[in-house]
Order: sequence, then structure tokens, then C-alpha cells
Amino acid sequence: MTAVPHAYVEDLHRHVGQVVTVKGWLYNKRSSGKLHFLQLRDGTGVVQCVCFKGNFGEELFKQLDTLPQESALTITGSVKAEARAVGGHEIDAQSATIVSVAQADYPITPKEHGTGFLMEHRHLWLRSRKQHAILRIRARVQKAIRDFFDDRGFVCMDAPIFTPSACEGTTTLFPVEYFDETAFLTQSGQLYAEANAMAFGKTYCFGPTFRAEKSKTRRHLTEFWMVEPEVAYLELDGLLELIEQFLSYVVQCVVKDRRPELVVLERDIAKLEKIVPPFPRLSYSDAVDVLKGAGHAFEWGGDFGAPDETLISEKFDKPVLVHRYPAAVKAFYMKRDPQDPRVALCVDCLAPEGYGEIIGGSQRADDIQFLEEQIALHKLPMEAFKWYLDLRRYGSVPHSGFGLGLERTTAWICGTHHVRECIAFPRMLEKITP
Amino acid sequence: MTAVPHAYVEDLHRHVGQVVTVKGWLYNKRSSGKLHFLQLRDGTGVVQCVCFKGNFGEELFKQLDTLPQESALTITGSVKAEARAVGGHEIDAQSATIVSVAQADYPITPKEHGTGFLMEHRHLWLRSRKQHAILRIRARVQKAIRDFFDDRGFVCMDAPIFTPSACEGTTTLFPVEYFDETAFLTQSGQLYAEANAMAFGKTYCFGPTFRAEKSKTRRHLTEFWMVEPEVAYLELDGLLELIEQFLSYVVQCVVKDRRPELVVLERDIAKLEKIVPPFPRLSYSDAVDVLKGAGHAFEWGGDFGAPDETLISEKFDKPVLVHRYPAAVKAFYMKRDPQDPRVALCVDCLAPEGYGEIIGGSQRADDIQFLEEQIALHKLPMEAFKWYLDLRRYGSVPHSGFGLGLERTTAWICGTHHVRECIAFPRMLEKITP
Repeated sequence: MTAVPHAYVEDLHRHVGQVVTVKGWLYNKRSSGKLHFLQLRDGTGVVQCVCFKGNFGEELFKQLDTLPQESALTITGSVKAEARAVGGHEIDAQSATIVSVAQADYPITPKEHGTGFLMEHRHLWLRSRKQHAILRIRARVQKAIRDFFDDRGFVCMDAPIFTPSACEGTTTLFPVEYFDETAFLTQSGQLYAEANAMAFGKTYCFGPTFRAEKSKTRRHLTEFWMVEPEVAYLELDGLLELIEQFLSYVVQCVVKDRRPELVVLERDIAKLEKIVPPFPRLSYSDAVDVLKGAGHAFEWGGDFGAPDETLISEKFDKPVLVHRYPAAVKAFYMKRDPQDPRVALCVDCLAPEGYGEIIGGSQRADDIQFLEEQIALHKLPMEAFKWYLDLRRYGSVPHSGFGLGLERTTAWICGTHHVRECIAFPRMLEKITP
Repeated sequence: MTAVPHAYVEDLHRHVGQVVTVKGWLYNKRSSGKLHFLQLRDGTGVVQCVCFKGNFGEELFKQLDTLPQESALTITGSVKAEARAVGGHEIDAQSATIVSVAQADYPITPKEHGTGFLMEHRHLWLRSRKQHAILRIRARVQKAIRDFFDDRGFVCMDAPIFTPSACEGTTTLFPVEYFDETAFLTQSGQLYAEANAMAFGKTYCFGPTFRAEKSKTRRHLTEFWMVEPEVAYLELDGLLELIEQFLSYVVQCVVKDRRPELVVLERDIAKLEKIVPPFPRLSYSDAVDVLKGAGHAFEWGGDFGAPDETLISEKFDKPVLVHRYPAAVKAFYMKRDPQDPRVALCVDCLAPEGYGEIIGGSQRADDIQFLEEQIALHKLPMEAFKWYLDLRRYGSVPHSGFGLGLERTTAWICGTHHVRECIAFPRMLEKITP
């Protein structure tokens, strides 16, 4: 029987009874005289390879016993279903080839390390079980996001990273020397997405965005990925429906396809299974009543802080859609509620379990005069918004959109405390390496 | 019969015989007394709406006749299959609602405009037929790229945008004020992708990358999207196979799903249908012989310029894989050919029809001593590569990867001369607006 020349661990269930070669790195091992049990990780999973001394030369068998963690090797053997083994399969090894012997001082050991140390070794920490699980979930979240929109006819339109002006104030912008000018790194693709929606009907952008956040919190990165759908002829009610359909789809894709990873993370999957439409909806004013009812000293008109959001979201076991915030605490481009011009036709989606805001969205102002007044009021440079106002000059329509942060969403789904573990190479204040 | 409350033009084939409401913008019109033929575009397509005077009030019928281009309106009526109509369907209008009347001076008219003018109105130019077609194809290319890798178990791992050091020299880097430090915008995610490949086996990153190119050519943007797969235990031969499978898949997805857009662009689809494996393969040395045979004065050892690439690629009607360039003209991290240490185990993929290089890739050096020598030789800061060298200290394996530029690939598939039309809001020297 010819061996399968390169089988991945995640595919071993297709090769039971066959001889395969797996290629990876030594993750763990134990020995008992004439047997080595080598755990090989190949990036898709971990498989135990049982090595009988009789199948190997004396020298190789001895060498396998002293091989440092993370050494690279390939093992050829037959695949057995074995319920007790990690991953459900085992390889009865016939031969092994050592590809490279790792230095014996691999920095990440079973002992507890501080997060600072681990982050300095992020390029290696990624190989650890939990980090590996989180980032496989992140990739699944990302794919679910794209599939949701692609399958519904949204056109992916990447927004530019270099922008000449700020969408929402300038204090958290990163300036770039752009030849003889100064450009700023985008904080949001939304204004561009609005232009795209008028050209393509339903669009989204999904790329890195940047905030020069001086605060070190568990919820902030200077560089994070954000998806921003924008839809022409969509009003606030339709936006709320889109959000609950979308978010439920994303969570259920992970529940379906990344269960082993959720188990590694000891995530309570039952809590995720509950994330299906409809979501509870609460006006800002009702949310203020909730806070007051709980004894919080909170006055109508202010924005919610993290503790407020936690208190509101703890009332529900699904994400809660809080709509119609005071216009004064929201961005200038939001449409006012004709029923109550003090409030904007906006929505924040608060994740359960204290994970806070993961989505912010709104119906956009479609009246050019209102927008010109707002731009003047906020002392923004009118000239920079000339093209944006063109969208109201030539075919203004009701339209809405939202932004969802990928790392915050991944943190919630994984039950991970800090967003920095939800991206391969996080960027924070004082942190741009490795 | 209840009307379908919002049907998109691209879905009209599902609604033949039904009454629907379409929502969009006035694209074109003609009138003949008691009939208006309004062409409505909604971002997914254009449909002709036939308005009989009898169905409308006198006033509305008159207003429709004078409505400026790009005015927003919704039209309700029954869908007919009509082979002669644009898109194959027609709407027999029963009622219309004018949502907003556009200013009558819409800047983009049927007359010829210069590209500079059109680029200044990029936010509106996107609505034009050809631009619309190109960007729908770009989105399809992007999706095909992601599907190809996702379906084959590659984990999407976004590389950081802020980097502390340069991967391939510093002359084309954009510096950013990063709090009290200077960071640089990434030119390539490759070094990070190598770390990811050692943790996940098969990975890719796909995001914006930046080059401070001072040259104004039709092939350069300062900000462009690049996909970079990286695979552990993959050598050069396997890389060539991966490239031809991948690129063929991407092109055939567009041929299958974006035929109407290719027709709008007057693209010769037969040329795209030929893009299937295997691709011709040519060593650099053989390519030099091709140039010499054609009477070019070219000496072994130099890099190919655009005219050289065109001459080589014109010999073939498929992309050509040119491998084993002189190591001196390639990046330091490439593995040398053990058969001939003057050359690197690398590959460039040249697109047909003079579109030049769209892929560059290589097997990576896996020997730490070689890499340390190269870093010293290129006078790169060893300290900055400490983490990268860790990948060789702890489990070095043969591995390979490549990078493909999204806009160049889209330009080739669309048959579009300039890459600037292949991204929604292009960034070039002296161009960061709108």
C-alpha cells in the first residue's frame, strides 16, 4: 500500500486504515521502555504517534526520546480510530524522519508565563493550544461575515486607508508623511461606503482601521479589523433586522464549525446557541430607566460607560439593540428621529456577559442642508466633505449601515477577556513588536 | 396581488409575472408622447420601466419627463421577460414615487471626460457602467481568492499594518508617528505569515499593503491589496502547482459568474477561458535565452524590466511561471537552489497580454546561519529579525509562499489598462482624495 504522501491531522478521519505521512512539530511526548508516544502538531491538530522500538533503528529510537519540544519531524504510519486519543485518532508509526532539531530552550513551557512575556514571544505563542483555538475561531468569524454579505448580494468595496480628513474628530488619528502632504490612517470606511452604496445598492468594506488610543484597556487595539455594511433604501427598522440576522449567523457558524476550539477554550456553548433572532430592543430612554431602576445615578443625555453597558446587557441572554441615543453624543452624519429630534436614528448592539458594544450603526442623514449645518457646527472643514455632500446632491436616498469590530466580536464568542489575544500580532500603545 | 416590497434588478428573473417595487436612480430616459421609458439603476443592474401616461397623474407624468439624471425614485409595476431590454426584463410601471430630485448639473455626462476629472469625481464615477463592472469583478476576484484558500484548510491570519522594520529595504516605506516612536506601514505580511505557517500549517493573509512609490505608472498604487499564502512543508515544485491551481480557479470563477460585466468591458472571454493548468514553466536562464533570441541585449544576472516581461509573456497564451532568478536580484530570505547556488528557489508569474508580474513567490531559507549571513550582508538590523530567526531555532521546516496583487490581477482579468480603476478609491502619488 502506498502511503498518502502528506495527510493533515484534521483530515485523518478520512484515512482510517491507510498508511499516511504526517508532517509537523513535536508537541509533547512520553516514553515507557520500548514505546514512545509522540504528540505531533501540524497546525491543523495534534495526533499521538505510537512508536514501537522494533520498528525503528536503535539510534533513531534513542534520538526520538531526547528530541526537544518543537523539533520538526515527519512520521509515516497507519491511522487508527482511537476514541481515547486526542483528536480521536492515533498513528501506529512505521518510520520517522527528523527534519530539524529545535534548540532545547523553547521559551514557552508548561509553567505559567506573564502576558507581557508571552506577547514578546507572540510568534511562538500562536502555537499554543488556546491561542491556536482563538485564532482559528477568528478566521471562522471573518469568513462568516464575508459569506453573510456575499450570499446576499452585497458588493465588497475596500475603503481607502489613507484619508485626507477625519470622520469623527482628530484626537485619535495617526498622521502619515504622505510625500509632501500629511495623510491620516482611516478610522472608519463609512463615508466611502455611503458613496459605494449609492453606486452598488448593497455594499460592505472590511479591513483594518486605526485609532490612536492612548488608553490601555482590555477592549482597545490601535489597529483592528472592522466590517461596515451600507445599504441604500434601508431605514432604521430594517437595519435592526439586518444586525440580528447577521450576528446570529456569525455566531451559529462558529458553534457549528469550531466546536472543538470552543471546548479548548472552555466556552459555555449553550450561551452561544441562544444567539438567534429576535434580539431584545430597548430605546436609550428605556435603557436609562433600567439604569435608574438599578440605583445608578444616570441622567438622560449622557453616553453610556462600560459599567452602564454591562448592567444593561446583563438583563438579557442575547445581544441587546439599544436605539435612539441623544444626537449630541453621536456622530454628525446620523439622521434625527422625526418623532423626537433630540435623538438620532442610531443603534448600538451590546454583547451579553459584559462584552460591551460590538456594533454601532445608524440611518444616515439624507438632507444636505442638515448635514451642512452639522459640519459647520462641529467646525469640520466643509471643503473636505464636498464629495460626501455630492451624494445628497445627486440622488439622496434613505440609507443605513453599521460597523462591527472583528476582535471584540471574537473575544465575546471565545469568552476571552482581552482583545489582544484575538488578532495574530496585536498593536497597542507601546506595542508594535514582534 | 401584493407587490414584492423591494426587489433588486439582478433578481428580477425570479419575479416574472409578479408586481414588484424597484428602488434606484434614474440612469437614462426617452419619451414618446404618452410613454416614458425610464432606465432605473439600483446598483445591481439597470431595468427599463415603461410608464403609460394613463397610469400616472398628469403632474407626476410631466415631472418624470424632466427629472434630472441620478434622481432617486421607486417604481412599482409588473415584471416582464423582454429579450430586447437591457438585462432581459422590463417593468410595466403602475406607480412611481420620486424620492429626491438630483441637481441638474450631474458632472459625468455622456461626453468624454479626462481621467483626472473622473478621478476627482470618483465617488460618482463608480456609478458608471464600466467602473461598476470592474469593481464587481474585483469583488468576485477577492471572494474567489478567499474561497480557494478557505476551502483548502488555509487559516486566514491578518498580518499587522504597523511594523517596526522593513522587510525589503526602506526607500519605499511610509513612516507613521506612532505615539513616541516611528512605525512603518507594512509592505508585505510575509515574515508574519511564516510565523503563522509554523503555527497553523497552511495560512494566508490578505489586506492592504503600502509602497511609497514616487513613480507614476499605470501599474503602481501606494495602497493596494495583496494576498500572501504561506505553507509549511511546501517546496518550490509544490508552490508552482499551488499557483497554477489558484490562479486558474480565480479566473474561472469570474468567467462563470461575471460574464455580463466582462461583456460590458468588451473583454475577450475566450482568452480567459484558456487559463487552466498546467502553466508554462521557464527557468530564468531559459527566459534570458528567449530575450536574446528575440534580439534583446540582455545579460544573465539582471532583473527583467516591463518590456522584457512583455516579450517573454507574449510567447504564451497562459500565465508563465519564471523560476530560479539570480539570488542577487531577489530578497534575502529566499532559499538558494542546491543545484546552483547562484539562483534562488523563487518564481514570478507573468500574466499574458503584457500585464506583467502578478505573483512573486519562493521557497524560504530554512537555515539560520544562512539567514544571519544574509541579514548582515544586506546591513539589516539583526535585532529586528530576532523573532523571525526564532522560527528557524524552534522547528525549522521547508516552507514556501507567494504574494498576489489584487488590483493588478483584476486589471488583467478585466483587460483594463490602469490599476487605478481596479480599486474604489485609488491612492497614488499626489492623490488621496476623494
